[in-house]
Amino acid sequence: MAKAPLPVSPLAPAGGFPDLAPVAGVRFASGKAGVRYPGRTDVMLAEICEGASVAGVFTRSATRAAPVLWCEQVLHRIQAQGAGAGGFAVVVNSGNANAFTGKAGQGAVDLTVAETARTLDIPVHHVFVASTGVIGEPLPAERITAVLGTMRDDLSPSELEPAARAIMTTDTFPKGAGVQLDLDGVKVTISGFAKGSGMIAPDMATMLVFIFTDAAITPQLLQDMLARLTRTTFNAITVDGDTSTSDSLIVAATGKAAMERIADPSDPRLSAFETALEGVMRELAHLVVRDGEGATKFVEIAVSGAASDEDAHKVGMAIANSPLVKTAIAGEDPNWGRVVMAVGKSGAEADRDLLSIRFGDILVAENGWVSPAYVESEAAAYMKRQELRIGVDLGLGSGRAVVWTCDLTHGYIEINADYRS
Amino acid sequence: MAKAPLPVSPLAPAGGFPDLAPVAGVRFASGKAGVRYPGRTDVMLAEICEGASVAGVFTRSATRAAPVLWCEQVLHRIQAQGAGAGGFAVVVNSGNANAFTGKAGQGAVDLTVAETARTLDIPVHHVFVASTGVIGEPLPAERITAVLGTMRDDLSPSELEPAARAIMTTDTFPKGAGVQLDLDGVKVTISGFAKGSGMIAPDMATMLVFIFTDAAITPQLLQDMLARLTRTTFNAITVDGDTSTSDSLIVAATGKAAMERIADPSDPRLSAFETALEGVMRELAHLVVRDGEGATKFVEIAVSGAASDEDAHKVGMAIANSPLVKTAIAGEDPNWGRVVMAVGKSGAEADRDLLSIRFGDILVAENGWVSPAYVESEAAAYMKRQELRIGVDLGLGSGRAVVWTCDLTHGYIEINADYRS
Repeated sequence: MAKAPLPVSPLAPAGGFPDLAPVAGVRFASGKAGVRYPGRTDVMLAEICEGASVAGVFTRSATRAAPVLWCEQVLHRIQAQGAGAGGFAVVVNSGNANAFTGKAGQGAVDLTVAETARTLDIPVHHVFVASTGVIGEPLPAERITAVLGTMRDDLSPSELEPAARAIMTTDTFPKGAGVQLDLDGVKVTISGFAKGSGMIAPDMATMLVFIFTDAAITPQLLQDMLARLTRTTFNAITVDGDTSTSDSLIVAATGKAAMERIADPSDPRLSAFETALEGVMRELAHLVVRDGEGATKFVEIAVSGAASDEDAHKVGMAIANSPLVKTAIAGEDPNWGRVVMAVGKSGAEADRDLLSIRFGDILVAENGWVSPAYVESEAAAYMKRQELRIGVDLGLGSGRAVVWTCDLTHGYIEINADYRS
Repeated sequence: MAKAPLPVSPLAPAGGFPDLAPVAGVRFASGKAGVRYPGRTDVMLAEICEGASVAGVFTRSATRAAPVLWCEQVLHRIQAQGAGAGGFAVVVNSGNANAFTGKAGQGAVDLTVAETARTLDIPVHHVFVASTGVIGEPLPAERITAVLGTMRDDLSPSELEPAARAIMTTDTFPKGAGVQLDLDGVKVTISGFAKGSGMIAPDMATMLVFIFTDAAITPQLLQDMLARLTRTTFNAITVDGDTSTSDSLIVAATGKAAMERIADPSDPRLSAFETALEGVMRELAHLVVRDGEGATKFVEIAVSGAASDEDAHKVGMAIANSPLVKTAIAGEDPNWGRVVMAVGKSGAEADRDLLSIRFGDILVAENGWVSPAYVESEAAAYMKRQELRIGVDLGLGSGRAVVWTCDLTHGYIEINADYRS
């Protein structure tokens, strides 16, 4: 299993992990269960107070892992029948994804949630689980349950960074984001963390995101907001177009802020809260891209003028997932022809002769041909930046979308082909 | 523009270019127009006799290049109104794709077809054109038309290999395939050649395929057959999932074989001819994959048990285009977890617990988990082969598909990111 640690991504935030505010009603602990990695924390426990609203979105893969199926099931039950008495928990392990593990996978989930519920004295169907790491191997759940008692004793509201570290696989830095906002004179906190794409063969990227807030908001409004915001944040990023069997995003709102609960869709506080939550989600999504395997460039792709927002998203993702575009970016090559190619294959409505393309502020192509004002050396200089923006206007309608990606480098090949456990 | 020549693909056929039989009614010439490449042939002219049936399929890109739009238009006219008197021609240049060149692109096509028609004394709408190479730069069509007279004088039925060489961009070997078959005692010849994915920045892959036969068959039956066979040959291969703006496949049947014309869909000779044509098309498609950028492995992906053939094709292409699967193959890693992931994201109906996966004859996973008989070292030994087969059975229905791809290696990154003109 010995392999050299991956170098920290050149796109890691200079300031390190942010100084996140604790969220009233939530406590964290991390532990060393030795699921797979020796000598590091690999279990994260979040305890959430009774009465919290919990929302979640999960991978749409047809081969979803057992923990994802469990979370979908308990979330559906809570949202359909109400949560009932008792607090909540989220328990996450790294090192083993408990994916494609047949019936034994559900057994490992059952043991983990039963023991977590017993340890924290909460209902079994209030326990969310997530697993990330190697797939196809049985999860030794008893190693996780063996450390739950100690972790309960260690629970603390301020341990967000250790929690973010415990869920890392081959992430090269822990990822956190948060904000405090004022809702009609009440200070409300949102703090969250994520893990991104890391790889240990035979393994695959898993994206896990956990966000906590003391805002008071009904579960249905929170779930609706989460689904809406996911589209423009986590569903608008891509490293390699491959979809994990385990991606999970859970948001818990404890209601501990001194505010009246938001229960009406027309409540003016709702949009202020949504804007703040969107900012945290977008920042975490960007951090996942910044730690994309082998990434050396962070790329925003802004599409406008599409026949619909859906078409704009299709075009953006076709560009962001194109190996030819991504290798051109790695090579600092202002290769707008490959952008045209990706627009053409996206499946969206497009007219070659209405297309315009910008790299940053540089107008590269318009009306189906290179712009008369275009100077290749200027674009080549722009491409040397670490943060890039590609603008595409389809000239057809008012559909818009923004997506984010990274470049495709030798580092990606090294991580995924050359490293072997 | 100086760059080192690419090394010949390790997957190139050991025997070199095949010894293709001439096709009665077709003559070839190649010339040095200096469109972009100095010191090599870069124009190919094929003259096809009067009365031939011509069929074609073209890229579905929404940003199709001017030559593709022209070919679609003339093919539509011929098929709707009949061809009328006069022979046909196909004129192809490498070095410049005449793509995303605005209105000037159509002007270059117009000049090329007008001069070709004049030189060969055939109707303008009997001239097919294709261009491959750099995009976004005006095509100097006058360099092409300047050599047409000499090329006419050089026309010869046997010059298939020089023709295949003239259309190469950064292909590392010329690609040809052919067969002779017996149709009710009449010897019929099919000979064709193709170019595949090559790259010169700022450029993109273009696949061009030209197949000639002396069979006598109506244009409509030939076109229907071509559309049907494309699905399981050229549309079943992928190097990187990127779709060119210029892909073109043209088949011409001269009718010079001493046979009665096939005009009835129930003619028993039709299926024998279709089988032979399919073999030539599949071989050319495989050669394109074998010259995929940076390829070191040729991979067949066979999907069965899908709810439909369409679903099976979706699953096959999701596996074949997955960067994680392709890098695992490059790393000779029997990483079946990534195959599961690709099945899950394909959009096809799938049930994790019915899935089985084979590498060659080795049963890797079944019923949603690793097979009890699976021995990783056996699979790892298998993965060292140059030709691999991944079998996936979805356990749902009778849908089937086979697709072909290559691995994703440092060579791909080098060709597309590191090389700069």
